Amino acid sequence: MTTKSNFTPKWIDKAPKKGSFRSIFKYGDPIGFKHPNAQFFDEIKKKFKLSNKDFKEKETTGNEIVKLERKTAIQSDQIKKFISICGTDNVSSQEYERLKFSTGKTIEEAMKLRVGIVNNITDLVIHPRTKKEISELVKYCNQEKIPIYVYGGGSSVNYGFYPEKGGITLVLATHLNKIVKFNEINQTATVEAGILGPEFEKLLNNAMKHYGVKQNFTCGHFPQSFEYSTVGGWFVTLGSGQQSSYYGDAGDLVLGVEMISPTGTIITKNYPATATGPKVLDIIKGSEGSLGIVVELTWKVFHHQPKNRQYFSFVFPNWEAAVNASREISQGEFGMPAVFRISDAEETHHGLKIYGIEDTFIDKLMKFRAYKPMQRCLFLGTADGDKRFAKNIKSKVKKICKKHGAMSLTSFPVKKWEPSRYKDPYLREDLMDYGVLIDTLETSVNWDNLHEVHQKCRDFIKKRPNTICMTHASHFYSQGTNLYFIFIIKENDIEAYRKFLEGIINEIEKSGGSLSHHHGVGRMIGKYMTQHLGENQMNILRSLKRHFDPNNIMNPGGQLGLD
Amino acid sequence: MTTKSNFTPKWIDKAPKKGSFRSIFKYGDPIGFKHPNAQFFDEIKKKFKLSNKDFKEKETTGNEIVKLERKTAIQSDQIKKFISICGTDNVSSQEYERLKFSTGKTIEEAMKLRVGIVNNITDLVIHPRTKKEISELVKYCNQEKIPIYVYGGGSSVNYGFYPEKGGITLVLATHLNKIVKFNEINQTATVEAGILGPEFEKLLNNAMKHYGVKQNFTCGHFPQSFEYSTVGGWFVTLGSGQQSSYYGDAGDLVLGVEMISPTGTIITKNYPATATGPKVLDIIKGSEGSLGIVVELTWKVFHHQPKNRQYFSFVFPNWEAAVNASREISQGEFGMPAVFRISDAEETHHGLKIYGIEDTFIDKLMKFRAYKPMQRCLFLGTADGDKRFAKNIKSKVKKICKKHGAMSLTSFPVKKWEPSRYKDPYLREDLMDYGVLIDTLETSVNWDNLHEVHQKCRDFIKKRPNTICMTHASHFYSQGTNLYFIFIIKENDIEAYRKFLEGIINEIEKSGGSLSHHHGVGRMIGKYMTQHLGENQMNILRSLKRHFDPNNIMNPGGQLGLD
Repeated sequence: MTTKSNFTPKWIDKAPKKGSFRSIFKYGDPIGFKHPNAQFFDEIKKKFKLSNKDFKEKETTGNEIVKLERKTAIQSDQIKKFISICGTDNVSSQEYERLKFSTGKTIEEAMKLRVGIVNNITDLVIHPRTKKEISELVKYCNQEKIPIYVYGGGSSVNYGFYPEKGGITLVLATHLNKIVKFNEINQTATVEAGILGPEFEKLLNNAMKHYGVKQNFTCGHFPQSFEYSTVGGWFVTLGSGQQSSYYGDAGDLVLGVEMISPTGTIITKNYPATATGPKVLDIIKGSEGSLGIVVELTWKVFHHQPKNRQYFSFVFPNWEAAVNASREISQGEFGMPAVFRISDAEETHHGLKIYGIEDTFIDKLMKFRAYKPMQRCLFLGTADGDKRFAKNIKSKVKKICKKHGAMSLTSFPVKKWEPSRYKDPYLREDLMDYGVLIDTLETSVNWDNLHEVHQKCRDFIKKRPNTICMTHASHFYSQGTNLYFIFIIKENDIEAYRKFLEGIINEIEKSGGSLSHHHGVGRMIGKYMTQHLGENQMNILRSLKRHFDPNNIMNPGGQLGLD
Repeated sequence: MTTKSNFTPKWIDKAPKKGSFRSIFKYGDPIGFKHPNAQFFDEIKKKFKLSNKDFKEKETTGNEIVKLERKTAIQSDQIKKFISICGTDNVSSQEYERLKFSTGKTIEEAMKLRVGIVNNITDLVIHPRTKKEISELVKYCNQEKIPIYVYGGGSSVNYGFYPEKGGITLVLATHLNKIVKFNEINQTATVEAGILGPEFEKLLNNAMKHYGVKQNFTCGHFPQSFEYSTVGGWFVTLGSGQQSSYYGDAGDLVLGVEMISPTGTIITKNYPATATGPKVLDIIKGSEGSLGIVVELTWKVFHHQPKNRQYFSFVFPNWEAAVNASREISQGEFGMPAVFRISDAEETHHGLKIYGIEDTFIDKLMKFRAYKPMQRCLFLGTADGDKRFAKNIKSKVKKICKKHGAMSLTSFPVKKWEPSRYKDPYLREDLMDYGVLIDTLETSVNWDNLHEVHQKCRDFIKKRPNTICMTHASHFYSQGTNLYFIFIIKENDIEAYRKFLEGIINEIEKSGGSLSHHHGVGRMIGKYMTQHLGENQMNILRSLKRHFDPNNIMNPGGQLGLD
């Protein structure tokens, strides 16, 4: 079946057609691509028993032009009011726009749009220019009972801003995308919620120039969606970056926020710590748009000192050894690596192909030293911060890894991985063009149930014939870590796919993992919340919801499992 | 006026009389004392223009026997019910007991009890034996609308468990004082809420023996009240330990809790991180008994490796230099010192006396090098964790301190300070015997308003003639620190004293500090909460209160400013 040859599918490497469905569901940069390399392509064919022939013709492309006849449900006097607040240019009832800003990055949405299936779309897209405008919008919508959804960078993988109830969608990145205050003394940057990762980081990296300060800074938060997600989105969904083990998760990195809700505006204080009762900031953390709109955030920044960065990679004989070493590192009290990532045997197998490490000297060395394929596990790491601090981490990590049977792979693999860190999502369009789906689910675990959750979820996923399941842990804490499952299957049936996903989520919950470590809840996971947290805890969240948003206009319809 | 002589007042060094007021308000161990040393005594006399004669006769001692005629308001059938739940031995309506467990450690309470003034006391003292009993108590009290107060270690300095509305007081330390589960893999200890600091730490320090594990552990949390406070109390009041800059504050150190409230029992999950909406654990954090009773907590523990500890002390030419160096350390990204404490000029002046450093070689060295009294500022530090990590911190700290004009004082001052770290509160009884009051208030600040808050509050305090005001910062973060004001005055009038305190709290708030960094809110600070957080944020807390405790039986009457 498998054919090794010089054949390469005609991966699409042009921007999607203007106005097409593809232009909406395609990940990231319209002219950004990462095609499967030859090794990975061969692996896919082998796994799914496909031949080159199966990659001659695309199953779907979604390059068809969006044509919808969906009248907006917002009345004309209401539209007039919105225009009076935000200006004509910033209000659109045009169907393409409405579909675009209603669409996130779930595989299900892409599957549907590829065949022209369109679910709910928002009734009106609004690009507010100021927080004052947002305040007026919220007030008016509350009075008129018009639902409000907020579009940040659009990278949600759980229908987090899906306009279940119609209404309006606010796009924050259009205008609300600036650093409004840089405070060198406190090491904070106060930003508008719609600023995207790259712009934020660029300004911080050049703080000396922009703000006349003594050093340059970094935000420390680099999720895979970095280029297409906003600072506000990072916070309200409790995201985690690829260097979170050192810098912390988004929830830890925000000192204070301004949130506009139907009950009024909340401006929390920016103290580094305070013992004045339950913190409202903590209540807003993770509220995913269901309590109000976070319009401004004060972010903790760090010195930007890339010259201090240490790189290290190891291979372990097996997953258990990699986990044990990771635990010892996480509990070692010498500071944490920044990038800190272990891949299980199957991810290591594919990762070596995807990162282009297979057949290099590193691969040969591993084979020579008998680190066996489908057993060996890759560890990638960096250390940031002060130079001696980072060097000490590197040396401690090395010692611990060796103790657990690992061999150093030098800095080569992590340096191969680093430049493509935001690029993996681009694989999905190429594969989907030929009916192959790549998707992810993730959870957090304590050390003592890590193996149980990993094994049970893998078992469930692998029960499906011809399925690739790769797992890594990449956010570490003294008390545990996360598990990130990436699965690749061949599937055309949307309902079957949805059932498969739901089966995995259920397995995660049943085996003791959390419903999400950093993707958030949205609508996809919402329905499991009561089973997960229990009725008592859900009632607390519902009570908060009623307080902030008595008319249920903020991101209504299943978000967080609230209704 | 001042008389240097061999005269020493007859400080009381016997346990308070059994059944006396003093046995209730005296801090800590009944036979624990720390008398003012000769140098500090001389200073007090000088400051308050007193002579030895003024220390011949005590103004008050409070050694009178408590005699109250306060019938309990709990009806006899209700008492029967309580006895049926908790057993006869664990229910007391005896007046001494009721006063004892209604009394915290504010100076005002001590002033009053010294002259026999008794405010509200609880109607019934109950020592529950299990969390099941607590659950039954809460259910019954909710039905009968009987207020419930919880006594942890009794160290509250803000009327945090003052039975404003009568009712019952639960004493948790009597029976609920065990580690119920030690988990070496996750590095957690699950404890009953009433376990006191020393017992908790002793068990952890001997974990190898008690739990058959591979290493010994530490809880990392050492507030000044360590010996007389409970783990549950640490958490619900958001306490901070003297090594918090490294280990974190109590709110960071708890992974999960079980809380019993009138609306039901909440058991939060113990994930190291999770993105499943606003976290109920965060809502319970700092709730100070107003939402429910935390009965069990899962605490993050650390390796106990005292041999790794590094000690260092410095003297700075002035406060500004000490603050600048501290900021550079806190933002230096090489890990944080554990003990990390800078004293302003006045605290340094008195501290050198109190810690017995005056006239030692260190003092002479400082004078020789022209670090001037009432300008110079002391820095005390330790570093914990891995040895090379801790050594690197020491070396970095040294470099930064020198850059800011400091001279190393070797490890001598911090080693002088360390053994007496829990002893300073014992000074207060000796001084109060002669009408001299020593009290504290504290706040948190960002780096950019530290000096403003410090100066404004000092100005206010020093406006009062003959007042000692010492300030230190001892809990550091990248974005700021705390300020801890210790003031000593001669005052007999309770009302005048209360006004003075309120003036300081007001000044803290007005100048931009938080209402508390780690003492919590209680009733003393409660009335400033709306002014501080604003009506909108208070309404959120009130809404939570109504949800958890619709009949307002949990710690009712002004707690957190809720009613």
